[in-house]
Amino acid sequence: MRIAKSVRILEAYTPGEQPKAKNVVKLNTNENPYLPSPKCAEVLKDFDLDALRRYPDPVFTALRTRIAKIWKTVPECVFVGNGSDEILTLAAKAFVEDDEAIGSLDPSYSLYRTLAAIRNVPFVPSPLADDFTWRKPVLEADGKKVSLFLLTNPNAPTGTVTPQDTISSFAAKFKGVVIVDEAYADFAKANCVSLATDAKNRNLIVMRTFSKSFSLAGLRVGYCIGPEDLIDALYKVKDSYNADAVAQSVALAALNDLPWMRNNAAKVKKTRARVAKELTRRGWDVLPSESNFLFARPAHRRASELFDDLRKMNIFVRYFKGARTGDRLRITVGTDAEMDALLNALSSLDA
Amino acid sequence: MRIAKSVRILEAYTPGEQPKAKNVVKLNTNENPYLPSPKCAEVLKDFDLDALRRYPDPVFTALRTRIAKIWKTVPECVFVGNGSDEILTLAAKAFVEDDEAIGSLDPSYSLYRTLAAIRNVPFVPSPLADDFTWRKPVLEADGKKVSLFLLTNPNAPTGTVTPQDTISSFAAKFKGVVIVDEAYADFAKANCVSLATDAKNRNLIVMRTFSKSFSLAGLRVGYCIGPEDLIDALYKVKDSYNADAVAQSVALAALNDLPWMRNNAAKVKKTRARVAKELTRRGWDVLPSESNFLFARPAHRRASELFDDLRKMNIFVRYFKGARTGDRLRITVGTDAEMDALLNALSSLDA
Repeated sequence: MRIAKSVRILEAYTPGEQPKAKNVVKLNTNENPYLPSPKCAEVLKDFDLDALRRYPDPVFTALRTRIAKIWKTVPECVFVGNGSDEILTLAAKAFVEDDEAIGSLDPSYSLYRTLAAIRNVPFVPSPLADDFTWRKPVLEADGKKVSLFLLTNPNAPTGTVTPQDTISSFAAKFKGVVIVDEAYADFAKANCVSLATDAKNRNLIVMRTFSKSFSLAGLRVGYCIGPEDLIDALYKVKDSYNADAVAQSVALAALNDLPWMRNNAAKVKKTRARVAKELTRRGWDVLPSESNFLFARPAHRRASELFDDLRKMNIFVRYFKGARTGDRLRITVGTDAEMDALLNALSSLDA
Repeated sequence: MRIAKSVRILEAYTPGEQPKAKNVVKLNTNENPYLPSPKCAEVLKDFDLDALRRYPDPVFTALRTRIAKIWKTVPECVFVGNGSDEILTLAAKAFVEDDEAIGSLDPSYSLYRTLAAIRNVPFVPSPLADDFTWRKPVLEADGKKVSLFLLTNPNAPTGTVTPQDTISSFAAKFKGVVIVDEAYADFAKANCVSLATDAKNRNLIVMRTFSKSFSLAGLRVGYCIGPEDLIDALYKVKDSYNADAVAQSVALAALNDLPWMRNNAAKVKKTRARVAKELTRRGWDVLPSESNFLFARPAHRRASELFDDLRKMNIFVRYFKGARTGDRLRITVGTDAEMDALLNALSSLDA
């Protein structure tokens, strides 16, 4: 056969819909409603065409040096990917043998299951407690040991947080590699970077993205920080020039304007609190969120039907079927105007 | 262990050096000496920041529709990657089982061996004839069958061409997938795209890059054309958003200015002919090149020593040690001024 068996039977991951229409309230893929820093626009405006002509820096020296400085570590402990997605794919190659498995919380980022399928190893979900808080992970299935545990924190689609000391204790006992996916950490009260940069750390990597808090989802840049030997392994398995010249420069510009990002994150958090309060007032069950979305159970309507009804009104939220997630909607926090449009629509739908 | 065994023992691919100094004559990584189309600059200058904020089109609709139109095929038969490198990595996943092997010509693009090592399958080199022309490939080693054959045409580092009918006959008999890597085809007299778009084609993919003829190595965009079922398999195993919004737009702009690319390619070919003639006059053995580089054996000096001597003069060419390649240098065709600098340096070095 010409196509590998594991690929033939693979169900591809379905990213959130990217509607073409213009008059859409788009609250379905956790994009930031505010524009990226004007410094990013400046980089694009004056971009040196000679830097397009030449191959980019294969090890993104300027960008990772800046990242290292921000987090008080060394560039050797920093890796940059074509989005966090690429880092996950490389980690599945570098930290998982063919007879091992990949684990994550359940529910969590639905891509992880596809990632394991593409890597052709079992995926082992670790059910969270009924209230979506931490429960001791399952680290083996059918005799296959989990060697890579993907721990989204704050978690998606729940928005909830596992405390740093819980993660630290877990990693200390775990024989494999833990990647703490902190895509949403700029919207949270705390993060785990200090665990990743700790000299005693042997197996914990923290991953960040420019897609959410930096408003650069279109650019595809993620990075991670961890022990040098693990970071080295990612460099070994990456494509030669995985981060392009424009992406490296624009991401660097974004990091050189942290107040812009923080100001946007603060606005999102303020809106998040307001909408969570309002939905709760209306009888919804809203999980405590430290991310840029809310995971909430409607008071009077089925989530799946409400999802369809909102879609007809050109308001896009996200619905994940399944026993743990099927009674809720994941709603990205947009601008205040967008959230008012949502709240009004919900009122009109008796939700 | 935390790092997979195949990765621990992996020797990483070494891309050509990207010297930091400014006063360098850089003829070592087959970059185009001429700038990309001004239409690319226009795209960057006015880039819509809102398109950075949002996720990019995961299936690059506008770009692949344009590619399909150029080659008279349908968008369903076109795939776009974060550089051709990514397409190769995805193909190694999609078209190779764990107990199969990857093959290529020998000598050819040295990345292929690393690609197989990362995929953790054997690499089976197929020696070219003494004059670097086609010889019947080796398609099995140690009982493992080659299921993916990577056929660079024009070949690198030789610059030589395998005729279309030879490739067509080979693919017709081969049970696996052939990728004809046409990175340099815009500098050649012919190409194999019509084989890829032929309705009877079941197993041949043609791959192109924007890195060479379009002068966009910094952007990381490659694409391929082939049978829909094989292209589908690449879509299944790719990361969700593998081509970023800027790259999609700039590549599209480049395709909307084909005369610019063709004019640059014509200049490169003219310079190539002049330098090949001059080196031959000086007694070098210059292989007939249809690419943007020359693979040539010096008349009076060892290639390895000459490489070092040129490097000291800030002239960078490429040297590949090994029985088949170690007596030659691979010299990218630069501007006429750059090539004159090289020729003068060679004179001063008695080469």
